[in-house]
Amino acid sequence: MEKDNLSLVLHSKGDIRLEQRPIPEPGADEVLLQMHSVGICGSDVHYWQNGRIGDFVLQKPMVLGHEAAGRVVKVGSAVTHLKPGDRVAIEPGVPREMDEFFKNGRYNLSPTVFFCATPPDDGNLCRYYKHSANFCYKLPDNVSYEEGALIEPLSVGIHACRRAGVTLGSSVFICGAGPIGLVTLLVAKFMGASQVLISDLSADRLAKAKELGADFVLPVKREDVPKDMAKRVDGMLGGMPHITIECTGVGSSIQTAIYTTRSGGVVVLVGLGAEMTTVPLLTAAVREVDIRGVFRYCNTWPMAISMLASKRVNVMPLVTHRFPLEQAVQAFETTRQGIGIKVMLKCDKNDQTP
Amino acid sequence: MEKDNLSLVLHSKGDIRLEQRPIPEPGADEVLLQMHSVGICGSDVHYWQNGRIGDFVLQKPMVLGHEAAGRVVKVGSAVTHLKPGDRVAIEPGVPREMDEFFKNGRYNLSPTVFFCATPPDDGNLCRYYKHSANFCYKLPDNVSYEEGALIEPLSVGIHACRRAGVTLGSSVFICGAGPIGLVTLLVAKFMGASQVLISDLSADRLAKAKELGADFVLPVKREDVPKDMAKRVDGMLGGMPHITIECTGVGSSIQTAIYTTRSGGVVVLVGLGAEMTTVPLLTAAVREVDIRGVFRYCNTWPMAISMLASKRVNVMPLVTHRFPLEQAVQAFETTRQGIGIKVMLKCDKNDQTP
Amino acid sequence: MEKDNLSLVLHSKGDIRLEQRPIPEPGADEVLLQMHSVGICGSDVHYWQNGRIGDFVLQKPMVLGHEAAGRVVKVGSAVTHLKPGDRVAIEPGVPREMDEFFKNGRYNLSPTVFFCATPPDDGNLCRYYKHSANFCYKLPDNVSYEEGALIEPLSVGIHACRRAGVTLGSSVFICGAGPIGLVTLLVAKFMGASQVLISDLSADRLAKAKELGADFVLPVKREDVPKDMAKRVDGMLGGMPHITIECTGVGSSIQTAIYTTRSGGVVVLVGLGAEMTTVPLLTAAVREVDIRGVFRYCNTWPMAISMLASKRVNVMPLVTHRFPLEQAVQAFETTRQGIGIKVMLKCDKNDQTP
Amino acid sequence: MEKDNLSLVLHSKGDIRLEQRPIPEPGADEVLLQMHSVGICGSDVHYWQNGRIGDFVLQKPMVLGHEAAGRVVKVGSAVTHLKPGDRVAIEPGVPREMDEFFKNGRYNLSPTVFFCATPPDDGNLCRYYKHSANFCYKLPDNVSYEEGALIEPLSVGIHACRRAGVTLGSSVFICGAGPIGLVTLLVAKFMGASQVLISDLSADRLAKAKELGADFVLPVKREDVPKDMAKRVDGMLGGMPHITIECTGVGSSIQTAIYTTRSGGVVVLVGLGAEMTTVPLLTAAVREVDIRGVFRYCNTWPMAISMLASKRVNVMPLVTHRFPLEQAVQAFETTRQGIGIKVMLKCDKNDQTP
Repeated sequence: MEKDNLSLVLHSKGDIRLEQRPIPEPGADEVLLQMHSVGICGSDVHYWQNGRIGDFVLQKPMVLGHEAAGRVVKVGSAVTHLKPGDRVAIEPGVPREMDEFFKNGRYNLSPTVFFCATPPDDGNLCRYYKHSANFCYKLPDNVSYEEGALIEPLSVGIHACRRAGVTLGSSVFICGAGPIGLVTLLVAKFMGASQVLISDLSADRLAKAKELGADFVLPVKREDVPKDMAKRVDGMLGGMPHITIECTGVGSSIQTAIYTTRSGGVVVLVGLGAEMTTVPLLTAAVREVDIRGVFRYCNTWPMAISMLASKRVNVMPLVTHRFPLEQAVQAFETTRQGIGIKVMLKCDKNDQTP
Repeated sequence: MEKDNLSLVLHSKGDIRLEQRPIPEPGADEVLLQMHSVGICGSDVHYWQNGRIGDFVLQKPMVLGHEAAGRVVKVGSAVTHLKPGDRVAIEPGVPREMDEFFKNGRYNLSPTVFFCATPPDDGNLCRYYKHSANFCYKLPDNVSYEEGALIEPLSVGIHACRRAGVTLGSSVFICGAGPIGLVTLLVAKFMGASQVLISDLSADRLAKAKELGADFVLPVKREDVPKDMAKRVDGMLGGMPHITIECTGVGSSIQTAIYTTRSGGVVVLVGLGAEMTTVPLLTAAVREVDIRGVFRYCNTWPMAISMLASKRVNVMPLVTHRFPLEQAVQAFETTRQGIGIKVMLKCDKNDQTP
Repeated sequence: MEKDNLSLVLHSKGDIRLEQRPIPEPGADEVLLQMHSVGICGSDVHYWQNGRIGDFVLQKPMVLGHEAAGRVVKVGSAVTHLKPGDRVAIEPGVPREMDEFFKNGRYNLSPTVFFCATPPDDGNLCRYYKHSANFCYKLPDNVSYEEGALIEPLSVGIHACRRAGVTLGSSVFICGAGPIGLVTLLVAKFMGASQVLISDLSADRLAKAKELGADFVLPVKREDVPKDMAKRVDGMLGGMPHITIECTGVGSSIQTAIYTTRSGGVVVLVGLGAEMTTVPLLTAAVREVDIRGVFRYCNTWPMAISMLASKRVNVMPLVTHRFPLEQAVQAFETTRQGIGIKVMLKCDKNDQTP
Repeated sequence: MEKDNLSLVLHSKGDIRLEQRPIPEPGADEVLLQMHSVGICGSDVHYWQNGRIGDFVLQKPMVLGHEAAGRVVKVGSAVTHLKPGDRVAIEPGVPREMDEFFKNGRYNLSPTVFFCATPPDDGNLCRYYKHSANFCYKLPDNVSYEEGALIEPLSVGIHACRRAGVTLGSSVFICGAGPIGLVTLLVAKFMGASQVLISDLSADRLAKAKELGADFVLPVKREDVPKDMAKRVDGMLGGMPHITIECTGVGSSIQTAIYTTRSGGVVVLVGLGAEMTTVPLLTAAVREVDIRGVFRYCNTWPMAISMLASKRVNVMPLVTHRFPLEQAVQAFETTRQGIGIKVMLKCDKNDQTP
């Protein structure tokens, strides 16, 4: 019987350690997974550097990681739709209660939801991990483990585009070309957006956005004036965008988003910034530009798997770095420095393929 | 032939005058109306006092008034659904172009819409007025002219409640018990809201709200702290409201609205305040509390007429003062002083009934 | 310790018996309830008379009853929102799996859902019954047990009206004034329908509909011609209804529903009839009259409780007969003969109040 | 001044003639167009062969054609968004009245809508034609006239997919691979459908569907049994489709559509068949499979132009035949015989390019 369950554990602010943890036993509705590929998310790094995100505060050591795919090695007694050997992507949020949010199909809003690597719940940056079987989704043969792990960030893009109402012919402005801006770009095009304009401070990120299919890119500077930016967006798209998806959380960028969105359109807030923000709410109100946030996602894994299985989108350019689990600290340091886009950790000693 | 077309004309900031204007001739798609009852709106007073609202600036003399009902006296050659003698309520906004907004059913957002008493378009506080026949709606016998005139403010409430998604069982918090807050209360209850809590600075207004069916009233003070207010709302309703409809435009009230609305709920902005507002946007975003504005209304007159004809709602307590058209200046002064709720001007010399 | 758990058990087609069953022990997420009031549904009688409904076939003895309210006597170890003594209404359908339907907020469509008194799942026409705590809803003090039991049929009306999109100003035609047609009437009015016309073969039922608030009643005969009926509906309502809710399942009535509904409107199918039906589908298609069915309900109990607690609707006239549990067979016979509207069984020996 | 306005006129059932008509003068809100490319629709042929479609009966000679693009040669006095020389696609349906349907954004349902080549309204299979400027949409330089003319059939596909709710990850079954089935396929994929299965009697059509991107094709025979077909669809897609778009109008195919669509899904009826159809309505109802029709389209031209301008879809393989306007009768004969997919008439003597 395998004993090695090397895990990346956050002990306290600034203190991550690779250490052995016991291999868990799956409950009746759970599966035990041998982890294969786990991406590093900005939030993992944020917990490492700050020990908290908002009200979620690390109180005891916690395994990091929540962008993950692996292989079923054991199934609980009540599990019927999975069997050992199945390759699965893991949805990290699992409702604990059948509360009003879950019953209404918005389980991401349930206050008691379990969520990998959000204190106090352990994540899956380890060798072996157990999870609710109903939140593990079988991958088709033509979808790789790394694509499976990328479903988590893709889900943020899907949820944002769905909340925005992106559809055939939508003209979309995305603020920020980091990992989330880029997946949102891919998803928006896949949902039929005809024109996507993306902005960023970094020329490198904009070049990557171009490579991934952005119709227009707009380099921005910190000192840009929101109303001027709004006019530039309008000019480049040949009209105000129907939808703006704000992925930076920066106040001036949110202002630009409101000014530039067409009357009757939608601004979706994905980037998280300061608690209090000063915005031209009057402009939004009298032009009926709706402002909608996203909290994680719900009901996205089946959509994302279909999207990836169609082979009409290539998410692999998002993965710029790979490290074996043993080098997790170095991998986190790479992400912390803002190098590349997505860093992938390879947790299976015997299979380090994508 | 009648010659008297006494009209209330705003000449410049602070300068309103009763004067004669020629009786207009209806075009092919228009009807000529003998005005009966016209309510005074806060925006009428605002134009009088300030000569402008936002980007709408008085450039030439303009007839005031847009909450109106009257009697058809002449119909254009192409009009088939109305005939002389019909009693009608007037929708003051008429699209001028079949643009994208009109085609999509949101004609209120059309930038070229005609709108009574918004510069440069004349209103209907006069004896005789012509209007697009398609935007005049026949009143059933059991709906009075004054009820017809009240459809305009009711429409703001309808549009707000519809944008909010008020339905059976909604718990609703309304900030502000002025005329718009009160009609919103009536509409929310009519649409099935189970619990409506309304707040205001004024005890008199809250008493009126109680009379009109508010389940709970919450007296507020200028110095109240938004997070504390949010808790009080939660406590009074036995849970956070699904929907908050903000009718004051005051920054701290908008903050309260965001804090107190249930995750996955909606804040509708009806009250207009400062251009820039500081709000807890992060809280709204991560709890997926949507923020939606309203700009006037669209597709509300038929609904409002059905509502009034059902006789299951009594809007008449909203009318607290009546003046003949000849005393329009005095009527405006009454509204300016914030006395009562709705002041009604009676434009028909021969029929001053409600 | 109480031992008496008298239960009404269906043994086979035509064979119902009152017999003792063991008092169950609640699991961690369950509560044990002392049953108070249980209404008899047409489906209970149908199982009794036929031993099956569609693909649901009685294979072993089953306790009947699913319109129920009771009192918590014991709570499972994981239950936090209920305590002994709480009065609750019971939602009879409980999802067994977190499948795609549950995750999307449509748990009524889950193929593995548990449902009281649908083979092979036992119902709650007994003294003591255990149920998932998350599907028991606490009743406010001003809502009686019988009102709580009536939430089940009310839920069918709520789900139908919600699927139909009933809102302020809707004009609604309801075919059939049996228990479901009548609750649909109550709900439609509560949601803001301005005009409700209801039809039935029986003058008594139409009289009851009038009493409950129907604006118009239309007596029908079996030989009525659908296109003629459609014209009569149009004439009575002063225009085609936006929405038709068909509660009879009779082919000619479904035809009338399609012919009479306004272009762009909705026909909701509530009544269940023959598997194959001949309908003017072309007419529905080219006028974009949508046809939507309902299967039970989901997310209705909180709405219904709010509705009842508001005291703005009186459902009690629906209860026309009451029997103690000991006389359950006689009660079933009453329902079978179509006497009255709703027959209520009183399961608590010590409290037979409404 | 040009005098030649050769037009294809339907005089009576079976009698089409090329004849000269006067060149019209545009009204204030109209433009005069030099026609470039006009596709032949099945309905054009149907009017020619039958003199009627349903209640629309030819009463006087009528110009045929409504899938059209041309060049502006003259603009009315009130037209500001177009100028001579602009290349435009023509939306053939223009509301005549600001009625409830137009105000609600569903102008296709307006009973008084003008529609090219639907009696008594003339179409645009001619050299010069005038049309409402607001229903002429400027083509970007990278969209050809023929693509512009194809927007009309594309619009049927767009409206069908939009009514169906096709989005990212939808699995879609399309019945029928004629011109409408094929454009629906293109649109469904563009809107993010992950898997599209299309069926037809003809192997040639299925081959074309494959070429256009169908994931699966299913050859059918007239004698196929609906429930068996439903199982085959389920098997090929690895699960029941979320959406079925029925483009044949054949009764057995509609039955298959209902049986095979997933619970909670949608069947859209595009194909028009017999007035009365026998369908398993009970199955649809209890599985909440909604049945929705389409009548033409609304608000599709801007979407379609964006879609075509993105160059991510190639509609040109749909055009299989081209004829100069002078050979219109021969072109109609080709369509009548069911040869090829889309036959295009070239109306500009000096420019017969695509």
